[in-house]
Amino acid sequence: MSKEITARQQDYAQWYNDLILKGNLADYAAVKGCMVIKPYGFALWENMRDVLDKMFKDTGHQNAYFPLLIPKSFLSKEAAHIEGFAKECAVVTHYRLKNDLNGDGIIVDPEAKLEEELIIRPTSETIIWNTYKNWIQSYRDLPLLINQWANVVRWEMRTRLFLRTTEFLWQEGHTAHATAKEAIAETEQMLNIYADFAENYMAMPVIKGTKSINERFAGAIDTYCIEALMQDGKALQAGTSHFLGQNFAKAFDVKFTDKDNKLDYVWASSWGVSTRLIGALVMAHSDDEGLILPPKLAPVQVVIIPIYKGEEKKELIDNKAQQLVQQFKTAGIRVKYDAADNARPGWKFAQYEMQGIPIRIAIGARDIENNVAEVARRDTKLKQSISLDTLPSFIPELLQDIQQQMYNKAKAYLDDHITPVDTWEDFEKILEEKGGFISAHWDGTPETEEKIKQLTKATIRCIPLDNKKENGKCVLTGKPSLERVLFARAY
Amino acid sequence: MSKEITARQQDYAQWYNDLILKGNLADYAAVKGCMVIKPYGFALWENMRDVLDKMFKDTGHQNAYFPLLIPKSFLSKEAAHIEGFAKECAVVTHYRLKNDLNGDGIIVDPEAKLEEELIIRPTSETIIWNTYKNWIQSYRDLPLLINQWANVVRWEMRTRLFLRTTEFLWQEGHTAHATAKEAIAETEQMLNIYADFAENYMAMPVIKGTKSINERFAGAIDTYCIEALMQDGKALQAGTSHFLGQNFAKAFDVKFTDKDNKLDYVWASSWGVSTRLIGALVMAHSDDEGLILPPKLAPVQVVIIPIYKGEEKKELIDNKAQQLVQQFKTAGIRVKYDAADNARPGWKFAQYEMQGIPIRIAIGARDIENNVAEVARRDTKLKQSISLDTLPSFIPELLQDIQQQMYNKAKAYLDDHITPVDTWEDFEKILEEKGGFISAHWDGTPETEEKIKQLTKATIRCIPLDNKKENGKCVLTGKPSLERVLFARAY
Repeated sequence: MSKEITARQQDYAQWYNDLILKGNLADYAAVKGCMVIKPYGFALWENMRDVLDKMFKDTGHQNAYFPLLIPKSFLSKEAAHIEGFAKECAVVTHYRLKNDLNGDGIIVDPEAKLEEELIIRPTSETIIWNTYKNWIQSYRDLPLLINQWANVVRWEMRTRLFLRTTEFLWQEGHTAHATAKEAIAETEQMLNIYADFAENYMAMPVIKGTKSINERFAGAIDTYCIEALMQDGKALQAGTSHFLGQNFAKAFDVKFTDKDNKLDYVWASSWGVSTRLIGALVMAHSDDEGLILPPKLAPVQVVIIPIYKGEEKKELIDNKAQQLVQQFKTAGIRVKYDAADNARPGWKFAQYEMQGIPIRIAIGARDIENNVAEVARRDTKLKQSISLDTLPSFIPELLQDIQQQMYNKAKAYLDDHITPVDTWEDFEKILEEKGGFISAHWDGTPETEEKIKQLTKATIRCIPLDNKKENGKCVLTGKPSLERVLFARAY
Repeated sequence: MSKEITARQQDYAQWYNDLILKGNLADYAAVKGCMVIKPYGFALWENMRDVLDKMFKDTGHQNAYFPLLIPKSFLSKEAAHIEGFAKECAVVTHYRLKNDLNGDGIIVDPEAKLEEELIIRPTSETIIWNTYKNWIQSYRDLPLLINQWANVVRWEMRTRLFLRTTEFLWQEGHTAHATAKEAIAETEQMLNIYADFAENYMAMPVIKGTKSINERFAGAIDTYCIEALMQDGKALQAGTSHFLGQNFAKAFDVKFTDKDNKLDYVWASSWGVSTRLIGALVMAHSDDEGLILPPKLAPVQVVIIPIYKGEEKKELIDNKAQQLVQQFKTAGIRVKYDAADNARPGWKFAQYEMQGIPIRIAIGARDIENNVAEVARRDTKLKQSISLDTLPSFIPELLQDIQQQMYNKAKAYLDDHITPVDTWEDFEKILEEKGGFISAHWDGTPETEEKIKQLTKATIRCIPLDNKKENGKCVLTGKPSLERVLFARAY
């Protein structure tokens, strides 16, 4: 089984695709650039969604649902927004098909042409702020804290399963506030929630920061982000939270009366994470044998596999296994007992390794005589013989340990791949030979960032929030700089 | 507050719209025929979704996600399907916008025309069976029990909030089986789950039956349905479950090797319910003061309102109320304490009546002295003074009682509105004067059903599953008939 996966060293991109397809997370779809999220992949997404949804609700947000289709003219209303999104939209121009009179299947009915074309939402700021106009009159209507779980479409030329697909699933929060201060506090709160989720659930350490102007969201005053590091040394933007100022309120004329009865435009934030996180999760932890999923998000946390010859022995194992299954379920553990007789244990082992199930328990007839079971953890591949009596307390602890170890390992890798660099020669060298984040001085101009991107394909991933102020010289131009920023090549 | 709602007697359709808009369930959207589901309406949908999702998973189904966009040619592959769905589709023809050179905003880029147009899914049989082709080879891959929660678009000419919108949210189950018998058993199982949900969660009695040929799903061998009755005497199809035979397997060439190593086409079912259920829920129970929501689905089950003058008294009430809130939450009750000081109690009473919150508890300073609170139930509007000590046990029982009473009331109305009719004169008279379901003999031909529809706007809602066989004569043609079917005008 494992032989079917391309090794990371050999072809990292192919390794990734192998994991997604053979790990049963997703499949290619009939429409270019789209994907089918398979049940196992979707169960993973559901776990991620449920954790995030609870975090959002615990901080006072409510879910709602806004239309998929946006009138074309809406996109024109916010000047920067249109530049960022109008170019890659799916456009609905007609609303009916009809039988071809020449008998050649069905054709678009030319008489059913829309007066104004509709865009499938690439993001929903425009349609939502057009709606907020009717919902907000006074400071009493604020803050408005709304989130939406939805599908969006961006017409991408180069797509990769989960990482960049034409259609993807995400959540988008859109909040409205009476003051800039409140909107910024919201923007930062949501960034912290994303970082909490990435680190404590995905076991994926991230760096919190803000984007340079070049990388800012189209229509934002400031874009905050969390940046993660993949095993090939490339960065991945895992979530963004935008302070939108009054840009969308002005574009859609959303004003409110404040406590002093004065009219002002409303302040806004928006923030989102998407199914892209699954791609990040896969690349952050997995190995050449398959996926490695963190226990807190794994659809199945523990798989129990019987090792037997003959029906009599099997019944003995079945009974013990069912007992364990009940005990684990009571403890809130997601467990599967795979007693299927159409595959050998070795095949099952490989399959569950491929799918990244954190713990595998193998039980044979002799094990039961000895009152033990073989417990194998997916992350380190370490195997131990554990007393059957101890298992119900051992397994929950082991799950916690795996979660922690996965984070520690990824954190050590990240820490080891943030390299301070002071000369252009080193910049290029580190980028080629080591990869990861390069911490370097930059003169603060979009032109220099663009030049560096053209020369090396590296961009400024973020200006870390906890940045030390430090006098230095721009790594490319030598002009003065007050702080280091993080460069990397990125997904 | 209540004066703002149009009375049912005066204008039933306007009453319904008032409830949806003023009850904060939904709002009209910028795009014709679409709607915005507001946070309160979406919380209701989340509760419905979560119950159904658990029912699906408990019966072995898994969620997955298939693409929004379907190649136009897919729709042509199943002959009946195309007739049913091709006519009302949103068609994507282009994938890019650009700035108009004449400076007139943005226009569709004519160079970005798709080779093959894409349809926004009106339902997903075609794209899913095109995918199943790659997932099913052998009987070991069956049954495949998959559900999807998704948005779909059907270009409707006449739309109504929740009941019929261009875009709506739904779930669609798509299962694949080795035998017709299994597929039919699945179809029936899901119908029973829908009926269970409607009756035991929505408190809405339904009649289970099958559709006549005229009303069958496009591409199905047999369509099962649950039919509910609204307060204006019109029926509403609340859920459907289709036995698709081998139609889609043949259209997309999905074969499997059975245990005897023979190749056969796969058997299929599909089944769905949508946000339309919210419309049904509203119309089944509400009154002229607003929504009446069943406790099991209500986003807020209990609201506590303080009645006070002066801050000192308020603190006393606050303390007691917070104590109750904690007790209720511990008991799993969704409770809200509305201590906002910007609205009078009377205004709050009307607002929560409008929103259909099952129980309102009002607590004044004197109440606390007397160790009581006023408990008002929304369904019957009955008020009682209840000892504060008793409340934590009284409220859960009252919620159960409200749930049951709401069902009983709707059931009595339904039973009272199934009228056996044997003459055409009575048929027309009952339909005009009483409404509801008419149980009548029918000669079994599509022509007669169509004729009756033209004459009266009534259609065959279903052939009940538990139908008695009985010799009779068709109510219109006098031709022989073996069983009665249910006619009604419907949403």
